[in-house]
Amino acid sequence: MHDLLGLETLSREQITAILDEAEPLVGVGERGAPKRDDLKGRWICNLFYEPSTRTKLSFGLAARRLGADVIEFASTGSSTAKGESLIDTARNIEAMGVDVMVVRHQSSGAPRLLQKHLPKVRIVNAGDGTHEHPTQGLLDIFTIRRRKKKLAGLTVALVGDIKHSRVARSNIHGLVKLGAKVIVCGPTTLVPTEIEQFGVERSDNLDEILNRCDVINLLRVQFERQRSSFFPSVAEYARLFGMTGERLNKAKSDVLILAPGPINRGLELTPDVADGNNSAILEQVNYGLAVRMAVLKMVCEN
Amino acid sequence: MHDLLGLETLSREQITAILDEAEPLVGVGERGAPKRDDLKGRWICNLFYEPSTRTKLSFGLAARRLGADVIEFASTGSSTAKGESLIDTARNIEAMGVDVMVVRHQSSGAPRLLQKHLPKVRIVNAGDGTHEHPTQGLLDIFTIRRRKKKLAGLTVALVGDIKHSRVARSNIHGLVKLGAKVIVCGPTTLVPTEIEQFGVERSDNLDEILNRCDVINLLRVQFERQRSSFFPSVAEYARLFGMTGERLNKAKSDVLILAPGPINRGLELTPDVADGNNSAILEQVNYGLAVRMAVLKMVCEN
Amino acid sequence: MHDLLGLETLSREQITAILDEAEPLVGVGERGAPKRDDLKGRWICNLFYEPSTRTKLSFGLAARRLGADVIEFASTGSSTAKGESLIDTARNIEAMGVDVMVVRHQSSGAPRLLQKHLPKVRIVNAGDGTHEHPTQGLLDIFTIRRRKKKLAGLTVALVGDIKHSRVARSNIHGLVKLGAKVIVCGPTTLVPTEIEQFGVERSDNLDEILNRCDVINLLRVQFERQRSSFFPSVAEYARLFGMTGERLNKAKSDVLILAPGPINRGLELTPDVADGNNSAILEQVNYGLAVRMAVLKMVCEN
Repeated sequence: MHDLLGLETLSREQITAILDEAEPLVGVGERGAPKRDDLKGRWICNLFYEPSTRTKLSFGLAARRLGADVIEFASTGSSTAKGESLIDTARNIEAMGVDVMVVRHQSSGAPRLLQKHLPKVRIVNAGDGTHEHPTQGLLDIFTIRRRKKKLAGLTVALVGDIKHSRVARSNIHGLVKLGAKVIVCGPTTLVPTEIEQFGVERSDNLDEILNRCDVINLLRVQFERQRSSFFPSVAEYARLFGMTGERLNKAKSDVLILAPGPINRGLELTPDVADGNNSAILEQVNYGLAVRMAVLKMVCEN
Repeated sequence: MHDLLGLETLSREQITAILDEAEPLVGVGERGAPKRDDLKGRWICNLFYEPSTRTKLSFGLAARRLGADVIEFASTGSSTAKGESLIDTARNIEAMGVDVMVVRHQSSGAPRLLQKHLPKVRIVNAGDGTHEHPTQGLLDIFTIRRRKKKLAGLTVALVGDIKHSRVARSNIHGLVKLGAKVIVCGPTTLVPTEIEQFGVERSDNLDEILNRCDVINLLRVQFERQRSSFFPSVAEYARLFGMTGERLNKAKSDVLILAPGPINRGLELTPDVADGNNSAILEQVNYGLAVRMAVLKMVCEN
Repeated sequence: MHDLLGLETLSREQITAILDEAEPLVGVGERGAPKRDDLKGRWICNLFYEPSTRTKLSFGLAARRLGADVIEFASTGSSTAKGESLIDTARNIEAMGVDVMVVRHQSSGAPRLLQKHLPKVRIVNAGDGTHEHPTQGLLDIFTIRRRKKKLAGLTVALVGDIKHSRVARSNIHGLVKLGAKVIVCGPTTLVPTEIEQFGVERSDNLDEILNRCDVINLLRVQFERQRSSFFPSVAEYARLFGMTGERLNKAKSDVLILAPGPINRGLELTPDVADGNNSAILEQVNYGLAVRMAVLKMVCEN
């Protein structure tokens, strides 16, 4: 694995290999535990063209805890303001001796473009437009596997704006390959019909599918990304697709609640659900480090 | 000491313990001197929601010179822009394996809120609203102790906008506990009457108290924080409360001049005073590192 | 060499010493190669008051690969917003125990001002107003020396806005001292007549000088810096002074194409020239690290 652009192009075996690699990396470098030096001498650049807290921090921490050096590149206050192209910026960073670029960009396909023009640098996609967010997909799947001890045969619902969600796309590709049944559920305008070609079931009624789900992954309503409104109102969305304590009571007692965050409390889910026992939201954040360590390690060892 | 939220809740003994801890840490890691590894394996996050130069740099340097790893979190370009709550942001950072959060926030009480919701993380207040700025108070007191060899019995004036100053509040709590006499002096609108309950003297005339002071701490006029105007004009403030060479001549010959900075030259004090022999302004900055090392060390060792 | 403010005040021997120091530093710390510890225990502060990608990253990487610790100071979100003067900000950073300040500032002479007021700190100019950008000049010259195996006797054209270019100024001072012939070429409004006093030739016609040049350095059209327009239109500039494949064919077959970047493709040069065999644009970026390592090493060893 020279790069990680998405889960669509990975085989079931490759995805499983990443998850297995991540297992022993959980907790590395935390709370006084020593760092490792797998990536000693490697330079990782966070090349982020969109706002991000957790993904950027997570990659940076993952890299440092494996002994790598990290460079933070912010598109504001930089040559981007001077009109430099993405490829030229990346080539300049490459010329400074960078081994891996972790790329977040508003344009779908930006990481692929960089891979094409910078064949020597390892490219890791940290979210591109509405295309993929593979490490988020991997950490969601990793969290499910840790909690449920399996993936094959599970029913996983992805709830919300499927159409614009790169998180949904990465989850679908990964989960289907690993044998889970995926239901995508949201307002009809936000669940594209062509999505069925990926082997998933569609629904526009959360209450109807609730009791069949082993896992419910509540996608974020992305106010900052959505210009036109695809649903009548926020209150309407919360009423129809928000995960509440009441809905949780109708679901399987051991249903696992995931959310990629940052969460809108009271919208995708209520606080009692977010902070309750079925929720693995903060475990997702922690496991994200292990999954990203695994990915950085594997692209560097190639 | 699991957290440092303010000096109000610390005992005289606890404050003295921090000052004593700081003594041998002066100069650590500077100008080729080696770092220490007291905090090796610890992760300190600078969680700053307000602009800051010296406090943020100071905490970051203090942490690194004791061997800790530092994470910088800026509220701009982050999930805050996506509407995530302070507590959720902090919980996410905690889930990534952070030991200490150094928090600056525009809301009084924000660090306390985090302490309540994140019991495992150590919280260090780096300034919250108009409440407290305990490490600034500690470094002011540390500088006085280094220069004057004592604290009990000294007369210390805090000059300026007492009402809105978290620096004043932390200084008052600390100095009174350590036996110093505190005079708060400023425009009557900016010196609340209830402040006398903390055992301090009020004054609205700097010239009247000048010759009684061993230390004069010139609070910053915070243009960026003050919406309504509490004094007629900047020139008027400088005329009545600015520390000039002329006023310095009327004070005790060994009076110590402090200022938390960033200073407005010609306003709180004139350049000849700021750069003169009575001024300890840059020593304050340097001692700030030792005090913050002491605080980080003590909360981590707990 | 206690500071590096510009190439104007350096002797031929001093410039050569920096270039020689840089030679063995090419590639240090890249792609798994180990770092060095020449600057262990040293603290380097990037004090940047203007947007920058490559220069800031380059200095930061150069410092870290020699074992130094780096502090990033951004003028936004800092005390600058509170009205603190440059000198006071720098003095505060000095008081925190910083050895070297790498300064970029919009005002010509800002690094010299800091040198005057902070005699103990080493000051390295990373570009000041329209004055100098010495490490860019050095890396341009270093790249020429590596490719051409000599400097004396070469003809080097600097093309573009000579008047406002600190890069041009540093190149002129360095190249002339090292025995190269320099031609400055650009729109007549942008090539000051007094420039001839530095021993350079003036031209307003690129086509006329093309076949005499061993090196052509294409200065950036700085849209972000230029308020009034000194040339009729961008298309006109590209037609008269843009380096195209057609022009390249009329130049010496081994002409070396340089550009300080970030480049405006299709303006100062066309993509085929930027990415062709005569171009050393990305080598410049890589060699910039070695040159900056040499400079940091030399000011620290003084």
